[in-house]
Amino acid sequence: MKSFVNYDSTSDFSIHNIPFGVAVFNQEYIACCTRIGDQVIDLATLYDYGFFDEIEGIDENVFEAYTLNEFIELGKPVTTAVRLKIQAILGEDSKLAEDHKTLEECFFSIDQVKMMMPVHVPNYTDFYSSIEHATNVGKMFRGEENALLPNWKHIPVGYHGRASSIVVSGTDIIRPKGQMKPADLDAPIFGPCKQLDFELEMAFIVNQHTEMGESISTSQAEDAIFGMVLFNDWSARDIQSWEYVPLGPFLGKNFGSSVSPWVVTLEALEPFRTTSPTQEPKVLDYLQFEGNKNFDIHLEVYLQPENGDQNLISESNYKFMYWNMAQQLAHHTINGCNVEVGDMYASGTISGSNRKSFGSMLELSWRGTNPLTLKKGEERKFIEDNDTIIMKGFGEKEGIRVGFGEVSGKILPAN
Amino acid sequence: MKSFVNYDSTSDFSIHNIPFGVAVFNQEYIACCTRIGDQVIDLATLYDYGFFDEIEGIDENVFEAYTLNEFIELGKPVTTAVRLKIQAILGEDSKLAEDHKTLEECFFSIDQVKMMMPVHVPNYTDFYSSIEHATNVGKMFRGEENALLPNWKHIPVGYHGRASSIVVSGTDIIRPKGQMKPADLDAPIFGPCKQLDFELEMAFIVNQHTEMGESISTSQAEDAIFGMVLFNDWSARDIQSWEYVPLGPFLGKNFGSSVSPWVVTLEALEPFRTTSPTQEPKVLDYLQFEGNKNFDIHLEVYLQPENGDQNLISESNYKFMYWNMAQQLAHHTINGCNVEVGDMYASGTISGSNRKSFGSMLELSWRGTNPLTLKKGEERKFIEDNDTIIMKGFGEKEGIRVGFGEVSGKILPAN
Repeated sequence: MKSFVNYDSTSDFSIHNIPFGVAVFNQEYIACCTRIGDQVIDLATLYDYGFFDEIEGIDENVFEAYTLNEFIELGKPVTTAVRLKIQAILGEDSKLAEDHKTLEECFFSIDQVKMMMPVHVPNYTDFYSSIEHATNVGKMFRGEENALLPNWKHIPVGYHGRASSIVVSGTDIIRPKGQMKPADLDAPIFGPCKQLDFELEMAFIVNQHTEMGESISTSQAEDAIFGMVLFNDWSARDIQSWEYVPLGPFLGKNFGSSVSPWVVTLEALEPFRTTSPTQEPKVLDYLQFEGNKNFDIHLEVYLQPENGDQNLISESNYKFMYWNMAQQLAHHTINGCNVEVGDMYASGTISGSNRKSFGSMLELSWRGTNPLTLKKGEERKFIEDNDTIIMKGFGEKEGIRVGFGEVSGKILPAN
Repeated sequence: MKSFVNYDSTSDFSIHNIPFGVAVFNQEYIACCTRIGDQVIDLATLYDYGFFDEIEGIDENVFEAYTLNEFIELGKPVTTAVRLKIQAILGEDSKLAEDHKTLEECFFSIDQVKMMMPVHVPNYTDFYSSIEHATNVGKMFRGEENALLPNWKHIPVGYHGRASSIVVSGTDIIRPKGQMKPADLDAPIFGPCKQLDFELEMAFIVNQHTEMGESISTSQAEDAIFGMVLFNDWSARDIQSWEYVPLGPFLGKNFGSSVSPWVVTLEALEPFRTTSPTQEPKVLDYLQFEGNKNFDIHLEVYLQPENGDQNLISESNYKFMYWNMAQQLAHHTINGCNVEVGDMYASGTISGSNRKSFGSMLELSWRGTNPLTLKKGEERKFIEDNDTIIMKGFGEKEGIRVGFGEVSGKILPAN
């Protein structure tokens, strides 16, 4: 499959992708959009021009919106049809290639637009589904023998996070202040967080509402998932470690989370399906699943000091996840918890088995005991002011590349 | 202060109250409303009749809405002026008493309306601010000596809950299913929760948006709080105890929370201000506060078996709270976490110091070891199918009574 739009073979936004987002065009007009190569396409205007007339179930211009929620809510049959239609009209033999009026009105260079938060997120949950990450953290805080807690292999452990502070890539994050209790002091102190961290995650977005009391089974789950984004779950380790017993992370996390602006559909990720790690002991019936439910998505984290180069500090992969999305959603709803369109469910930190694949500074610097050395010789135990963290992710197989672009965020000094 | 509307001296909805809610009138028309005695007053029609014309800042009919959010967002100067205006037109010498057209159009008996969820809740946080409750739970799970964790007296401990499943009083709650691990088994099992519980709580509702990076100080906090509701934080103890380490409550809580339909303003609660428990050790600067920030609100919990009587099983008081609302909100935002209009912040279980004042079945039956005996001789360790839990709350002082009505919920058998 080729497009009449030229793009580099390393572009995440090949014709195989067709992601969805929301952009500000010409600094004033907001609409839903897609992207190919470095071209952003205004879907609202494309709708007005009749390009989606033949698709049943899309009666209104749902792209004339500040979020993707209305579009997503139309469900897979419609959103998939729209994606395939876009793919078709971007094909190399498409008439659109010669339709200069439409090209001029609907196609914008990525430099000309500002990407917005793609969805309104009514509820946000963060899982803890990488066995390597959970084991690393467990080793540091509880020692080798008790690294993995007794429930971990039976439950995709998760907790509710703060939806209000999820922001789009490019939004600065202010270093949080809070209570910390250094081990050598008897009482807590107050001040700017000293152990600011990222967490390399991905998140999926739900396309439907359920009623309280309903559950979504592992076999139904993927129909309820519109797509995925890259997710940086910023974490203040010193605030977190003092506050989190017994009710979990709170101010150590809720000062901000960053997402990539492009939602890549599950359909676009089909070529990258792969097997899951063996789950032993066997999980309870409602967590069992059939088929390949993991995805081979290569992930990278870069740390860029102010005015400095990007330093690749981690390379991981979404396929390492012990618990998959279908299991996460089935577990989340088995008690009748209702879901809403736009809900975001993050994976938890995605670490691999060796240091180079760890998904947080906590693990990379092993709690600050083994600092990272950057290109110019600077060291990092945690993130410093004016550092920018950039995460990238893509699948690549048999010449097909589908990616997420990036999620980046710069840390500003505490207020 | 007296009203031309007759009501019983034991009514929670005296002229001193003037709470706000949302109702369905005549089974079709939805609007914001207030209540006096057993009369519910349609504020949207009252607005159309010009009763609020002189109040600055209320340019549109914000009462023509499915939630109170738009009204709340107008802020204290406007919402307080509206409340005082309503109080004035309900006064015993008000011309409204003779305005039969308005009375007929705007006044409805409580039996004629259906109360709705009063606000849309963008974010929900649950605190853990009763020292008696935290100590009780600590004793049961960690023993007498380690009952209170080291951070508890330094931090108003809290966690994020699930906003999607907060429902209005009268909504049935389906017994959740999930994973549990009985102590005598090696592996977890799956099934309907066997230790279903309530938690007697109150919650406050925020009236403003803040930007990420902003904080709300203890002295600013009460201006940011529109009012309060009764809150039942339904809890599945067996699911919770297996899942909650290390990331906190999740499926043990998110299957449902119930709130009372009437939001009582902080202004209406003024007469019931009282002192707080002494906080020792002294809290950090950002948690210090001036003045009386606790409220003397008498709370009751009733358990009603199907076709049976209401059994009073607990009498507690909101004034027992160790951490007050101003401290909770200051803590929540000290790291720059942004708040949104309609956000709900629950207190955590409100227990007193003796068994009769414990705010959960877990405490009342001491983890099932000391069952409650109901009027007809039935025993309860936890909540059984078709039991209804009813919570009531009111302040009463020098002849002034201001209350919340009730929040009730019936437990239906698992699906």
